[in-house]
Amino acid sequence: MMTKRIGLFGFGVVGQGYYQIAKKQKEQWVPDTIVVKDQKKRRPSDIKFSYTAKDVFDKNPDYILELISDEKEAYEYVTEALKRGITVISANKKLLSAHLPELISLQKVFGGKLLYEAAAAAGIPVITNLETHFEEDTIISLEGILNGSSNYILSRIFNNGLSFEEALRMAQQKGFAESDPSFDINGSDVSSKLNILILHAFGKFVGQEQIATFGIQHLGDVEINLAKALGLKIKLMAKADKDYRGISAQILPTFVEESNSFFGVENEYNAVKIVSEHLQEQFYLGKGAGSLPTGAAVYGDLIKARNGFSYNYSKVNFDKPLDEKLLNLGVRVLFRSKSLEQNDSVVFSPEYSIHLDGYYYTVGKVKPKNFSRLNEEGGVSIVALPDSVSAEDVDYAFREIQKSVEVV
Amino acid sequence: MMTKRIGLFGFGVVGQGYYQIAKKQKEQWVPDTIVVKDQKKRRPSDIKFSYTAKDVFDKNPDYILELISDEKEAYEYVTEALKRGITVISANKKLLSAHLPELISLQKVFGGKLLYEAAAAAGIPVITNLETHFEEDTIISLEGILNGSSNYILSRIFNNGLSFEEALRMAQQKGFAESDPSFDINGSDVSSKLNILILHAFGKFVGQEQIATFGIQHLGDVEINLAKALGLKIKLMAKADKDYRGISAQILPTFVEESNSFFGVENEYNAVKIVSEHLQEQFYLGKGAGSLPTGAAVYGDLIKARNGFSYNYSKVNFDKPLDEKLLNLGVRVLFRSKSLEQNDSVVFSPEYSIHLDGYYYTVGKVKPKNFSRLNEEGGVSIVALPDSVSAEDVDYAFREIQKSVEVV
Ligand SMILES: NC(=O)c1ccc[n+]([C@@H]2O[C@H](COP(=O)([O-])OP(=O)(O)OC[C@H]3O[C@@H](n4cnc5c(N)ncnc54)[C@H](OP(=O)(O)O)[C@@H]3O)[C@@H](O)[C@H]2O)c1
Ligand SMILES: NC(=O)c1ccc[n+]([C@@H]2O[C@H](COP(=O)([O-])OP(=O)(O)OC[C@H]3O[C@@H](n4cnc5c(N)ncnc54)[C@H](OP(=O)(O)O)[C@@H]3O)[C@@H](O)[C@H]2O)c1
Repeated sequence: MMTKRIGLFGFGVVGQGYYQIAKKQKEQWVPDTIVVKDQKKRRPSDIKFSYTAKDVFDKNPDYILELISDEKEAYEYVTEALKRGITVISANKKLLSAHLPELISLQKVFGGKLLYEAAAAAGIPVITNLETHFEEDTIISLEGILNGSSNYILSRIFNNGLSFEEALRMAQQKGFAESDPSFDINGSDVSSKLNILILHAFGKFVGQEQIATFGIQHLGDVEINLAKALGLKIKLMAKADKDYRGISAQILPTFVEESNSFFGVENEYNAVKIVSEHLQEQFYLGKGAGSLPTGAAVYGDLIKARNGFSYNYSKVNFDKPLDEKLLNLGVRVLFRSKSLEQNDSVVFSPEYSIHLDGYYYTVGKVKPKNFSRLNEEGGVSIVALPDSVSAEDVDYAFREIQKSVEVV
Repeated sequence: MMTKRIGLFGFGVVGQGYYQIAKKQKEQWVPDTIVVKDQKKRRPSDIKFSYTAKDVFDKNPDYILELISDEKEAYEYVTEALKRGITVISANKKLLSAHLPELISLQKVFGGKLLYEAAAAAGIPVITNLETHFEEDTIISLEGILNGSSNYILSRIFNNGLSFEEALRMAQQKGFAESDPSFDINGSDVSSKLNILILHAFGKFVGQEQIATFGIQHLGDVEINLAKALGLKIKLMAKADKDYRGISAQILPTFVEESNSFFGVENEYNAVKIVSEHLQEQFYLGKGAGSLPTGAAVYGDLIKARNGFSYNYSKVNFDKPLDEKLLNLGVRVLFRSKSLEQNDSVVFSPEYSIHLDGYYYTVGKVKPKNFSRLNEEGGVSIVALPDSVSAEDVDYAFREIQKSVEVV
């Protein structure tokens, strides 16, 4: 097989993971040009680095790997490459989530290909499966744990009793967190991934602003202890459903029962559940972050591209947008707020309410369209509650945690 | 897109599942010729049937779907088709497990393609993933629940207290069982699937006679009640491992702990866990039997074939065969036998033994090479025991079940 020219942008967690794998496998997959940004950073002395994209493009590469942390510059590199008909592998969910419709057009017009498995669930080949196995199946819902870093944090909190801050520091040390970890914990990383997956599952580009998002950063001890008292865990769940009205999508910390497939998904693992008409129910679990699993996803895309694989986007149809009414459907949650006014203006169909340590906790319904505003109001926390956990269960748990406080 | 000519062999559980999906999706995927066997069977009157393979081949089909229950005749149809360079989709694990090396050669020589996702884990795209995502990753182990029918039976026994016979009858009614259900329960269906998966995972054709196999048909109430007393379940597990000595493969009823990913796999679901060097750990769950999931896997293969996808078999290397010594490694089990002689001649490193209701139950090691002989000796049952379940735990459980017997 003829050696291919490969240009690599970025030599961080993902870039180094890719490099390590390519080096160990076949020499032909080692990039001939590696572009990074910071001229002052110490680098391995046995690798030659470049600091300008020109060095990549001048060599007329067959493949470009875009593994940088920046969105704007990635946009320049990727669109330039696609316009030259080059095959690009990207791990950049921010870029993809913002620009997929344009990037799909560029592929169609100029014949370049773009693969990006690492941008969704890293080690789990969910985009590939959606594009092959599910290509002509009708998907009913897609649900997942899509951020390795926040899942790692929740595992440390629930299984090791760590505080939020301690757990976040550990996730950063292990390389699971994005360079700006606030994207991990406020749900925005998940929302970019869900936005990409929705396109492949349902053929629509909904855009992140249409995905009702609330992160784990406002979780308090009460929610955590409540979950423990009921034998539940809290997971940051992403969910997209399709029915006759359209697609609804939301990202919410969620009380998860032991019988739920996601209960046992721990640490940096991601998991995805797809319900479809023919294949019915599938569940995938794999590493969603970290140097080797992400590098391997990039490497896998490169091998697939060499074998002639590309995304067909056969479900894609951008005609009819998301129905905004879906953001008005109620989600059953445990809602925490600082004031009774806030509580009453947001929660409808309340089932239970309690006042504890200066906060109001209410079981009831909230509208996804309010999530982004509530995120900024402060004091608020929202955790989705499955129907099978009744208001009585919640009441029982509140009594339990108050008991334990009194005893200490 | 030009209409393709499709010939279908077989209109049973899988054939009808495929037909139903093709009909609902796009008319072009509905077969123009359907060959079945029994001229006296009542059939839907709105579909035309043929009774000779000639009717398919005379039409020069682009695709042939081989979905019949017979192995020998399937061999004729599939080899004939491949020699004509036709693309074939098959669900026939018996055929594939017996003849894969030859079928791979025929593809290479004549340019026809053969896809067979439905033959492994039906709804789960495990072969496709092995051929794409894992193509250049080194697989360390592959483990799975690969027979929907026996898993369904075990679920009914463990979750609904049914007897073995009642549970088997239900599996047959639901269409999960093969036409001859003994293949489901004696492990031979699983062993043909594992044989196929080993080829795609490790590149070796080990052959079913090298896969140490023991089914669920000899399971007794004692093993089942013992599992229940310990909070365990029994699952029919298939496992293949690779180390410096070679590949070892075995199929055994296995005590499974709650912390194991396979614990929650119920009913006709299949599941596969793959551990590899780069992607590390992946777990897939989906429907492994039944009309629609299996039909959808066939349909998915057809769509993939149309998109130019084929198996690369890039790991395949038939040079060095399986090391027979691996069949001599010990597996830790609970062993039941009718005589002390049999017990002592088979079990080594015994940790615990008890005599109950005319049987000897021993925790110790047995050699996989003895499984097939023990299968025929009668009275014997073998259930693999994880290291974390100690001899003391087993002793405790034996006391518990004897207590409950006395009380009744
Ligand atoms: N970490 C994960 O587990 C993970 C998982 C899935 C997807 N991703 C995605 O993969 C991408 C890379 O993530 P990462 O974790 O590897 O980030 P990282 O460790 O922060 O590394 C980023 C790399 O990009 C380089 N870079 C930044 N701007 C550049 C520019 N304009 N031109 C050339 N190089 C530039 C940096 O150069 P310097 O070395 O000079 O700083 C650095 O080498 C991101 O899009 C991220 O969202 C990450
Ligand atoms: N059932 C499952 O869930 C499942 C899952 C995965 C794979 N599979 C595999 O899929 C294949 C089909 O299984 P199935 O469950 O659909 O079997 P089935 O329900 O017993 O149906 C078998 C079909 O094959 C036809 N047939 C048998 N010999 C034939 C011959 N020589 N020429 C033409 N047609 C012939 C039969 O014809 P008549 O109608 O005239 O009897 C019948 O239509 C098997 O290889 C099986 O191992 C099954």
